[in-house]
Amino acid sequence: MIERLLPGLGWLRGYDRAALQGDGLAAVIVTIMLIPQSLAYALLAGLPPEAGLYASMLPLVAYALFGSSATLAVGPVAVVSLMTAAAVGELTAVGTPEYRGAALVLALLSGLFLVAMGLARLGFLASLLSHPVISGFITASGLLIAASQLKHILGVEASGHTLPELALSLFENIDAVNGPTLAIGAGATLFLFWVRGLLKPLLMKAGLGPRWADSAAKAGPVAAVIATILLVDLLSLDQAGVSVVGAIPEGLPPLALPPLDPALWRDLLPAAVLISVVGFVESVSVAQTLAAKRRERIAPNRELIGLGAANLAAGVTGGYPVTGGFARSVVNFDAGARTPLAGVMTALGIGVTALLLTPLFQQLPKATLAATIVVAVLSLVDLGALKRTWAYSKGDFAAMAATILVVLGVGVEAGIVTGVTLSLVIFLVRASRPHMAVVGQVPGTQHFRNVKRHLVITSPQVLSLRVDESLYFANARWLEDRLYDMAAADPGIRHVVLICSAVNDIDASALESLEALTERLEAAGVRFHLSEVKGPVMDKLKRSHFLDKLTGLVFLSQYDALTALDPGTTWRALNEPRPERSAAAS
Amino acid sequence: MIERLLPGLGWLRGYDRAALQGDGLAAVIVTIMLIPQSLAYALLAGLPPEAGLYASMLPLVAYALFGSSATLAVGPVAVVSLMTAAAVGELTAVGTPEYRGAALVLALLSGLFLVAMGLARLGFLASLLSHPVISGFITASGLLIAASQLKHILGVEASGHTLPELALSLFENIDAVNGPTLAIGAGATLFLFWVRGLLKPLLMKAGLGPRWADSAAKAGPVAAVIATILLVDLLSLDQAGVSVVGAIPEGLPPLALPPLDPALWRDLLPAAVLISVVGFVESVSVAQTLAAKRRERIAPNRELIGLGAANLAAGVTGGYPVTGGFARSVVNFDAGARTPLAGVMTALGIGVTALLLTPLFQQLPKATLAATIVVAVLSLVDLGALKRTWAYSKGDFAAMAATILVVLGVGVEAGIVTGVTLSLVIFLVRASRPHMAVVGQVPGTQHFRNVKRHLVITSPQVLSLRVDESLYFANARWLEDRLYDMAAADPGIRHVVLICSAVNDIDASALESLEALTERLEAAGVRFHLSEVKGPVMDKLKRSHFLDKLTGLVFLSQYDALTALDPGTTWRALNEPRPERSAAAS
Repeated sequence: MIERLLPGLGWLRGYDRAALQGDGLAAVIVTIMLIPQSLAYALLAGLPPEAGLYASMLPLVAYALFGSSATLAVGPVAVVSLMTAAAVGELTAVGTPEYRGAALVLALLSGLFLVAMGLARLGFLASLLSHPVISGFITASGLLIAASQLKHILGVEASGHTLPELALSLFENIDAVNGPTLAIGAGATLFLFWVRGLLKPLLMKAGLGPRWADSAAKAGPVAAVIATILLVDLLSLDQAGVSVVGAIPEGLPPLALPPLDPALWRDLLPAAVLISVVGFVESVSVAQTLAAKRRERIAPNRELIGLGAANLAAGVTGGYPVTGGFARSVVNFDAGARTPLAGVMTALGIGVTALLLTPLFQQLPKATLAATIVVAVLSLVDLGALKRTWAYSKGDFAAMAATILVVLGVGVEAGIVTGVTLSLVIFLVRASRPHMAVVGQVPGTQHFRNVKRHLVITSPQVLSLRVDESLYFANARWLEDRLYDMAAADPGIRHVVLICSAVNDIDASALESLEALTERLEAAGVRFHLSEVKGPVMDKLKRSHFLDKLTGLVFLSQYDALTALDPGTTWRALNEPRPERSAAAS
Repeated sequence: MIERLLPGLGWLRGYDRAALQGDGLAAVIVTIMLIPQSLAYALLAGLPPEAGLYASMLPLVAYALFGSSATLAVGPVAVVSLMTAAAVGELTAVGTPEYRGAALVLALLSGLFLVAMGLARLGFLASLLSHPVISGFITASGLLIAASQLKHILGVEASGHTLPELALSLFENIDAVNGPTLAIGAGATLFLFWVRGLLKPLLMKAGLGPRWADSAAKAGPVAAVIATILLVDLLSLDQAGVSVVGAIPEGLPPLALPPLDPALWRDLLPAAVLISVVGFVESVSVAQTLAAKRRERIAPNRELIGLGAANLAAGVTGGYPVTGGFARSVVNFDAGARTPLAGVMTALGIGVTALLLTPLFQQLPKATLAATIVVAVLSLVDLGALKRTWAYSKGDFAAMAATILVVLGVGVEAGIVTGVTLSLVIFLVRASRPHMAVVGQVPGTQHFRNVKRHLVITSPQVLSLRVDESLYFANARWLEDRLYDMAAADPGIRHVVLICSAVNDIDASALESLEALTERLEAAGVRFHLSEVKGPVMDKLKRSHFLDKLTGLVFLSQYDALTALDPGTTWRALNEPRPERSAAAS
């Protein structure tokens, strides 16, 4: 019963001590990782640090109740934080109550949209985001995020939502670089790169198991946080111009509805849709990868509802849009998380932090948080993918490159819309030019093959064409013209036979084109026939008037067609091979 | 030489007396038909009557110089006039100089867009307008146009751009109906329906040939125009509240650039694009149908340039957007037009009318023009297509019905955008769920067939799957999940073989999914193989790292795959048929 209402709770059955141990250990490690991340991503989103903590509590519990992945770690993530900053920053000014309100509306709208998609079972629409577009988007977002954090590391003012704007703004303010801030920021960045790249091998050399070495390396940001807090506190660096996080209100998240301003909701809706889709796609990818390792599976439509619930929770508890984090989920999985209870315990850990530990973060330099962001997002940047995609497919490369350039030069939302549109157009262009072949009979058999690739027999008065694609609106008119032109090019042709062995569907537009083609060929004195029509397609044609208008016949096989339309072919062609047509073998 | 610069002039070579006679007669008949039409459609577009005459002069000459159809009759048409009224009416008020200026800008933008599309050889993009969307759009536009003309027939004021708005507005003003106007309007409408439906059979019964009977029937509107002008003049009905066309400036079109206001141009651009595409699609359909009857052919990209030139001409000579008219082109063809010179002579005929005959139209009742419009557009309404499309394909029906409802309830532009979007989504949904089949070996052969349709041999440890579609982003993730689930459902399976005989392409997203599937299957202890990969696809795969990561092999044929992976299959399966799987023949 409870499983039907809250499908996320299926794991409660058979929960045991081993699972509890796994979940508990994972929760401790993820909490340690999440504390600096949640503060840093709130900073990236232009929100006060507590918003990051709030987004890491109830949303995790909501996902545990409704989601389908046992190990996905939900919460604030870099790309969604950047998208939040871009969307909200367009409407209101950072630091105002309106800005926080708009971020709440964005989370709520995103939650409503995800839940609606899940209930309507529309998860498959996320497949419109092709892999090159996602990959380009993540790479460009990573570069943009890293650039946006440079100001915190340098201790200068800078603004802008595109790479050129950010670069120009930094360049103009480069004189104002604050020495102590730069020292902390650059030091933390170098330290974190060292931890990520070199510490793990060192620890393993020192005898630590690879799993423990990895977990220790993941605690790097916490070490940087503690060290730089102490540094600021001991040297009073906040007096020397080092910008710090400042007072964070203690206590649990406030429970309140976001502003109910229809104009604001309408303005934020497109961004909420994009954030939802991007977050969903990222989240499902990692959840699927992890589930496969244990031969579990995740249900995309339930994922939509789980992520939707998490965002609804974020929207009413002072957070901002959340989704499943890649690195965090992998850590959760590797640390032994077995069930969604790990997420609930992580939420408890963040809750304890929010209740008791926030005074400790008052002296935390923003430069340290910026360093953790830079190191995290640069690991997402994969410029090599550009080269690999170029080698594999020029069309996919174009979609990827366009996404990257538009994200960097115009903005995140424009970038993803450009990428999706371009990949759709490229796909339609490809599909609108299907492969088609003039075929002839392989001597002595009932098989028919491409005249360009095989030595085959053709009839001078029968043109036999095979189209290797379903017939539908994007290719119908082109095929109509091609078939007509080929028939019209040779005045000797009296019959055209379209071989439909690869045609799985004929839509209404293609039906119309076939009718038009029949008329055009009839006007030219050529009869039009079909052969090898599949059962379901034939059923459909019978429901239309096409077969009444067809000037020719429908043959069960192409062999039947040729023998009926030109009974003398075999004899004549075998005795008089027509090398100009049939010998062009390849 | 001249043919390269002005490809439309290719017909000059070999022009003879017979062609001249054909063109001349056609021009006379089309001119007689075009005079009332051009006045009426200008009224529909919210423009003064002379705009219709001007749009019927130079644009025809421009098309003759650049277009590729010998018989297409270009000029103002109903649907494009309605779209002009909708687009321009949103920005300015009818009757103002700004309104006329905006209509000129619309023509110029439309011309620029069409020429650009033609030069870029993008004519094929028009195939995105599927047949059900066009058909629904024309039907709904016809209804909307007829509804918009009722006010002229009733002699009342009414406004609105949607069917509900128009109906409400007419209902509110129904008390103000003008008796004499209604008599003229209703009389002309009934007369024109009679001419269209019954006169032709009568004339043929009286011994007239079908072609002459048809031409005589086409002169019905001119007869109605003459009769009602005389009626108004004799009875001074203009004093009795019958609204008349009024003074039309005599003379040739003014040559002037439209207003160069960047904001106006930007606001009108989306409408110009839609008008261009709709006009182009309509125009190409009729041009192709007519060309086929004489075994001629038209070149879509040259059509774009021809129609673009016509619109540019309209934009600088006081007209508004034009395109190829359906009924008018058929009349032109049937009356014997042989070359584009017929269009030039029609333009001359309209020029003479504009120079000499405009005073005659001063007393022409608007109700008569409205009647000609209503009768013309109602012939475009094809509600039966809804039923036929429903019977043929539910998806196509949905796109058609949505287009009709949105055109009638929201507007023409929203309608066509809805229809195109919906047909794309429907197509992608279909393509994202390709047909796939588990296959087994036909006993004693090397052929493999669907286990659901044939009695075949399968191996308990090898799952053989055939996908009947190229692998690309819209279906990649779905296939990945389906394949994984099918393999995971049976713990006995150790090998999955994907048969790629119907796979014409694998895009970068699908490649990523295949890699992910390989990993997921490997984690589950299952190896992943390919068989029957086509040459070009294999070349592409070799340029990626996929083959290094593949846990299995690539087999030339499925028979090779099965014998290598489970050498005992044939023997065992023949002795122990597995009816639960193989006997489900259909």
